[in-house]
Amino acid sequence: MLHITRKEHFNAAHRLFREDYDDAMNLLVFGKCSNPNWHGHNYTLYVTVAGEINPATGFVINLKDLSIIIREKVTDKIDHKNINLEVDFMQGKMASTEVLTIAIWNELEDEIKKLGANLFCVKLYETENNFAEYFGK
Amino acid sequence: MLHITRKEHFNAAHRLFREDYDDAMNLLVFGKCSNPNWHGHNYTLYVTVAGEINPATGFVINLKDLSIIIREKVTDKIDHKNINLEVDFMQGKMASTEVLTIAIWNELEDEIKKLGANLFCVKLYETENNFAEYFGK
Amino acid sequence: MLHITRKEHFNAAHRLFREDYDDAMNLLVFGKCSNPNWHGHNYTLYVTVAGEINPATGFVINLKDLSIIIREKVTDKIDHKNINLEVDFMQGKMASTEVLTIAIWNELEDEIKKLGANLFCVKLYETENNFAEYFGK
Amino acid sequence: MLHITRKEHFNAAHRLFREDYDDAMNLLVFGKCSNPNWHGHNYTLYVTVAGEINPATGFVINLKDLSIIIREKVTDKIDHKNINLEVDFMQGKMASTEVLTIAIWNELEDEIKKLGANLFCVKLYETENNFAEYFGK
Amino acid sequence: MLHITRKEHFNAAHRLFREDYDDAMNLLVFGKCSNPNWHGHNYTLYVTVAGEINPATGFVINLKDLSIIIREKVTDKIDHKNINLEVDFMQGKMASTEVLTIAIWNELEDEIKKLGANLFCVKLYETENNFAEYFGK
Amino acid sequence: MLHITRKEHFNAAHRLFREDYDDAMNLLVFGKCSNPNWHGHNYTLYVTVAGEINPATGFVINLKDLSIIIREKVTDKIDHKNINLEVDFMQGKMASTEVLTIAIWNELEDEIKKLGANLFCVKLYETENNFAEYFGK
Repeated sequence: MLHITRKEHFNAAHRLFREDYDDAMNLLVFGKCSNPNWHGHNYTLYVTVAGEINPATGFVINLKDLSIIIREKVTDKIDHKNINLEVDFMQGKMASTEVLTIAIWNELEDEIKKLGANLFCVKLYETENNFAEYFGK
Repeated sequence: MLHITRKEHFNAAHRLFREDYDDAMNLLVFGKCSNPNWHGHNYTLYVTVAGEINPATGFVINLKDLSIIIREKVTDKIDHKNINLEVDFMQGKMASTEVLTIAIWNELEDEIKKLGANLFCVKLYETENNFAEYFGK
Repeated sequence: MLHITRKEHFNAAHRLFREDYDDAMNLLVFGKCSNPNWHGHNYTLYVTVAGEINPATGFVINLKDLSIIIREKVTDKIDHKNINLEVDFMQGKMASTEVLTIAIWNELEDEIKKLGANLFCVKLYETENNFAEYFGK
Repeated sequence: MLHITRKEHFNAAHRLFREDYDDAMNLLVFGKCSNPNWHGHNYTLYVTVAGEINPATGFVINLKDLSIIIREKVTDKIDHKNINLEVDFMQGKMASTEVLTIAIWNELEDEIKKLGANLFCVKLYETENNFAEYFGK
Repeated sequence: MLHITRKEHFNAAHRLFREDYDDAMNLLVFGKCSNPNWHGHNYTLYVTVAGEINPATGFVINLKDLSIIIREKVTDKIDHKNINLEVDFMQGKMASTEVLTIAIWNELEDEIKKLGANLFCVKLYETENNFAEYFGK
Repeated sequence: MLHITRKEHFNAAHRLFREDYDDAMNLLVFGKCSNPNWHGHNYTLYVTVAGEINPATGFVINLKDLSIIIREKVTDKIDHKNINLEVDFMQGKMASTEVLTIAIWNELEDEIKKLGANLFCVKLYETENNFAEYFGK
C-alpha cells in the first residue's frame, strides 16, 4: 500500500455568514470573513490516493488521470469563481475551509474509485497559515 | 546604502473589467478574471526601503515602524476587502496587480520619507506565479 | 471528523547540553548544538485540532480562538526568549526539538478541550530540514 | 512515542518505460516521462523515524546519525545519477516515484533499527506537485 | 515603468562536459555534473517584462500572452527533454544554467517586443540553491 | 554579463543592544530583540556574483569554489554561534541584519575577486519576513 499525492491550485471569492444573522452578528461570529462585499484566496489543494502499485506501470494511479478528475470535478467549477454563488457542490453550505474540504472529497471519491484506487485524504490550504484535512470519516 | 525589505500578507476579492465593455468583451480581454461575481487572492507584499545605516541602532529603519505604516496605509484598508468596491486608494482604477502595485507605492512613499528613508521597491504577488514590481519611475 | 491546522512562528535561543557532562563530552554528544554561548532558530509550529464541524458556523474551531490560545500558552512565553533559561514550561528539561514539541502539546491540550475540540498533532520545525511531530501518546 | 523527520535532496535522471513496449506504446502509457533520451528531477526526500525520547539526550535519534545513514544508503548512490542505469537498489525496477519510495524504505529500514528507532515513513517529492509516501506495509 | 514577472516550470536531463576532455578531466572540472549517464533537474524559470501600463487594461502585458510565448519558445521544447541532445536552441552549447539562461533570453526577446513590451530579466533556478539571472547585456 | 547566486544557511544567537543604554532604554529602542538572555534565528544567505561566462566551462564561476569561500569566510565562523560574542568579523558591531549583511560582503569581496568574478549582492534573510540587501556602495 502506498499513498500518492497531487497538488493543484485555484483561487476564488467567498464570504462566511448566515442569512439568519444580521451584519453585526455575522461580524461577531465570522470576523472580517463576513464582509458582505466578499474577499478571496489562493487555495492550494492536495489530493492523496491510496492503493497498491500496478506492477505493469509502477504507478498506483496515473497522475495524469488524477489530474483530469480534479480539474473536471473541482477546479473547473471553482477556479476564479464565487464559492457562495457559483459552485454547484457548495450550494446551501457554509463556505468555510472545513466544509469545502469535505465537499471536494465528495466530488472526488467515486471518480477515483473508478480508476481502481481509493481517495485517502483531501487537504486544503486557505492561506499559508491555515489548512483543513479530511480522511473520509 | 542598504536595502531592507518587509514582507506582509493580505487577501481580497477583485474583478478585472471595464464598464464600457459588455460581459462578452470583458471575457475576451480579461478572461476568467472578469467574472462578475468576483474572485480573490492571497496577496504577498514586499516593501523595500533604501537608506544609510543609523550607527546608533544598526538599522536603516526600525522594521516595527515600517510594519505599522504598511498596516495603516495598506493592509488595514485592503485585507478581507473587495478591491474594486471598498479600497479608497483604488477607487476609479483597474484592479490589476500592476495598478495596485503603483497605488500601494503612492500610499507608502511619503510616510517612509518621514522616517528618514526612501521607498525603493514595491513588489506584489497576486499568485505564486505572477508578481509586479514598481521602482517609482 | 475533520482536522484543522494553524501555523505560527517564533524564534528563540537554546543550547543542548547536560550539566553532568563537561564541555568536551557535550560537544561529542550534541555537536555544535552544545555551544555554551547559545545559538538559535526560527521555529515554525503547526497545531492540528480534530473535531466535528459545528453546523452553525462551518468551523471545527474558530481559528481566531485557537490562535489566541497558542499565543498565550506558547509564543508569548518563548518568542525572542532563551528556551533553557526563560521558558517556564521547559525548566529542567533538555531543549531539544523533541522535548519542546511534547511540552507545547502539554501547554495546549487542556485549553483546546475547553473549546470543544481535541488536540491531534503538534509539529515543530527547528530548521527547514528537521521537524518533530507528537500525537499525544 | 514521537516522530522525527529529516529532509534531504538529490537530483537524478530517469525514464519511465517497459522494454516489452515499443516507443509508441511507451508514449501512450507513460507520456513525456517515456522520453528515450531521459529527463530528470530535483527530488526531495523526507525520512520519518518513530521512537521514544532518550532521557539522557532528549533525542529519539541523533539526526547526525540519521543523516549519515541516508547519505550512505541513498543519496551517495543516487545523487547526480541515472536511476535506471546506475542505482544498485533500482536495478530491474520501474523508475517511478512510487517504486523508488519503497526501494528507499528498504535501503533504510534495517540501518535505522540498529540505531534503536523505527522507520515510520518515507516521503518523496518528484516535483513540487507530486509526491509518494510509504509507511512500510 | 513597471516590471511584471511570470514563473514557469520544466524538468530536463543534462550533462556538463567537453568532448575534447576525457572522463577524468571532465570529472575534475565539472564534478558530479559530468556524469556520462546524465542527471536532471526541476528548473524554475522567472521571465520579467518591463513596460508602461496600458490604461485600457491595467496591464503591462497580458500574462496569458506571455505564458503562451514562454510555452511555445521554451517549455514545449525543453520540458521532459535532454538539454544536450534534444533542445534546438542549446545545440553546440554547454548545458550550464548560465548558458541556458542566455539562450532562453534569446528565444524570448523578439517575441515579447512584438507584444509591445521589453524583456527585462530571465532568472533560472537549477536547484533551490543555485540560480542565474540575465539582463540582456 | 550574467549574475549567478548561491544560497546557504546558518543559524545563530544574537542580541540587539547598546552597552551605554540600560535595559529599559534597550527595550524601548530594540524591543524583544534586546533580550539580555539572547534569542536566535535561522538565517538564509544569498550571494550573487557578476561576471562573463567562461566559454571553456559555461560557468561565470564554479559554484563549488564559491561555496567553499562562503563556508570558510562566513558559515564556519557563524553557524551555531553567538554573533555578538563569537564571530570575529562582527566584533564591536551592532548585530543587526543590516550590519551583518555588510560584514558578510566585506568577508567575501576579495576572495571572489581572486576567482575572476565580482561580488554583486549579499542578501540576508533574518526571518522569512525580513531581509537586507547590500550592493557594495
